[in-house]
Amino acid sequence: MPLGDLELIEKFFKGLTASRSDVVIGIGDDAAVLAPPPGHELVVSADMLVAGVHFFEDAAPFDVGFKSLAVNLSDMAAMGAEPRWATLALSLPRADSVWLDAFSRGLAHLAGRFQVALVGGDLASGPLTVSVQILGVVPQGAALRRDRARPGDLVFVTGELGAAGFALEALKHGSDPRSIAPACLERLLRPLPRVAAGQRLRAVADAAIDVSDGLVSDLGHIVAASGVAAEVDLERIPLPLAMGPPPPDSDDWRIALATGDDYELCFTVSPGRADAVTSVLQGVGHPVTCIGRILAGDGIRWKLPDGSDLEAGWSGYRHF
Amino acid sequence: MPLGDLELIEKFFKGLTASRSDVVIGIGDDAAVLAPPPGHELVVSADMLVAGVHFFEDAAPFDVGFKSLAVNLSDMAAMGAEPRWATLALSLPRADSVWLDAFSRGLAHLAGRFQVALVGGDLASGPLTVSVQILGVVPQGAALRRDRARPGDLVFVTGELGAAGFALEALKHGSDPRSIAPACLERLLRPLPRVAAGQRLRAVADAAIDVSDGLVSDLGHIVAASGVAAEVDLERIPLPLAMGPPPPDSDDWRIALATGDDYELCFTVSPGRADAVTSVLQGVGHPVTCIGRILAGDGIRWKLPDGSDLEAGWSGYRHF
Repeated sequence: MPLGDLELIEKFFKGLTASRSDVVIGIGDDAAVLAPPPGHELVVSADMLVAGVHFFEDAAPFDVGFKSLAVNLSDMAAMGAEPRWATLALSLPRADSVWLDAFSRGLAHLAGRFQVALVGGDLASGPLTVSVQILGVVPQGAALRRDRARPGDLVFVTGELGAAGFALEALKHGSDPRSIAPACLERLLRPLPRVAAGQRLRAVADAAIDVSDGLVSDLGHIVAASGVAAEVDLERIPLPLAMGPPPPDSDDWRIALATGDDYELCFTVSPGRADAVTSVLQGVGHPVTCIGRILAGDGIRWKLPDGSDLEAGWSGYRHF
Repeated sequence: MPLGDLELIEKFFKGLTASRSDVVIGIGDDAAVLAPPPGHELVVSADMLVAGVHFFEDAAPFDVGFKSLAVNLSDMAAMGAEPRWATLALSLPRADSVWLDAFSRGLAHLAGRFQVALVGGDLASGPLTVSVQILGVVPQGAALRRDRARPGDLVFVTGELGAAGFALEALKHGSDPRSIAPACLERLLRPLPRVAAGQRLRAVADAAIDVSDGLVSDLGHIVAASGVAAEVDLERIPLPLAMGPPPPDSDDWRIALATGDDYELCFTVSPGRADAVTSVLQGVGHPVTCIGRILAGDGIRWKLPDGSDLEAGWSGYRHF
């Protein structure tokens, strides 16, 4: 006998995630009631994953659950926010208990790591789409923005760029997943968002964004929103070991700079504070690298080691 | 030339809805930043509409935009909350400017009426699904809940039950929309949520829910969550004029009580406060009707005018 919607939601999602004292009413009423802390602003984002677009139709449901929360947590990281609560709107073709169980465990795994409570949601029959909305908090006026970069700022990125893209390209070309560098595959399927780094960066960064569409696109957003230019030294871009240093005409530059799905942070820091970046981020568990600088003007110059410029004419992933 | 995602979002959705002074950062950064009022709790809900499930594949895009916000506003009404902000996650097969324009106007029409600001969202290629998350506020501790009905309470509903269901049945049976009672068709396609009534009911109601799945299901949630029983006088159920009083064995009872899509409020009030209901709701623009009472026990008794009971064995709409 098929389960009703409410029973399905309660079976798979109620009590799945952290119980938080700031959840007054959780799953089970018309809406959740939450108690935001005084002196804070609310930070809200919604990201959606569509089967066949954002993940392979046959992707492991644990990974789909994990990543649907990860991409939203990455937005919290980019704002310097502390994530607290999430809702889920899930449409799926049939009430497959095995799929739902693994999906909910993937989501719960990451939620537990960041103490995020799933407080509501909706479940419907339909094509497989996963829409998560995340809510976080930030001390009043302290949110990191993408429109605050200033000429003279240095440009940094966390982690490595291109790892997820490297694994994605390999999978698209039919590679056996077991033959792909595990660190790259992990970054594609179960990316850990840079939540701790984002919150610490409130102390030093002028502007920040998460690298979800590739650096060309996302650093492009920073310079466009801030009304500035940037210059990036390509030899300083932190690439995954599996990629090695690409020759100037290599397609690897496209993978590293424009495939996206990195979920690293790109941020700018005034020169006087640059020395503090390393100490502020000490212990977060991933590297941080200075890759260039902000200048007056517009656009981004991508400098190759030989002094020439790379024509980075790729745009990030476009849905339409 | 196809528009990129960001351009599409900015073209159709940025500046579409009310500008509110409590929106610190709206559409255009990684997340929105909002300033909730002191002394209030946050009320959050997410509802999704799937093409072919929640609306006909060829539904007018204005109506889809309108209804995607309406069903979420109805959850705010049920909690007694004041809606303030919304996010949208929309997947659609192609970037159809005509469709997007009409969809966004439908959403904006209702958002404007309730001063809701669209503060963020996501747009992806995929099957047509619309996921809206709504955020509202309520004075601390004042949210209406479904688990607070007490024996002796009277049961009320706003508006009429079955109007949307009546129109839906007619459409399913191939009726020309022009032949369907306009008031019923309007309630199906562009339901006005009972937001003002919900907020006023905080002063008098013990328990409340919105009638989205039909009264059998939704009053069922109130009695189950509150650990009580209910008795409903079917002759007092406010039916749309187009339906007339159904005989005991009529399928119209199923339409009125179990088809759902009403988006009215069902609430309970202690007998001492029942007289205040009419004055509290004066001027909201829709009727309110006492239809029964809460008793000790469990389950719901549906009393026909001849004193016999209707066997209301239908459940609300089930996705699985």
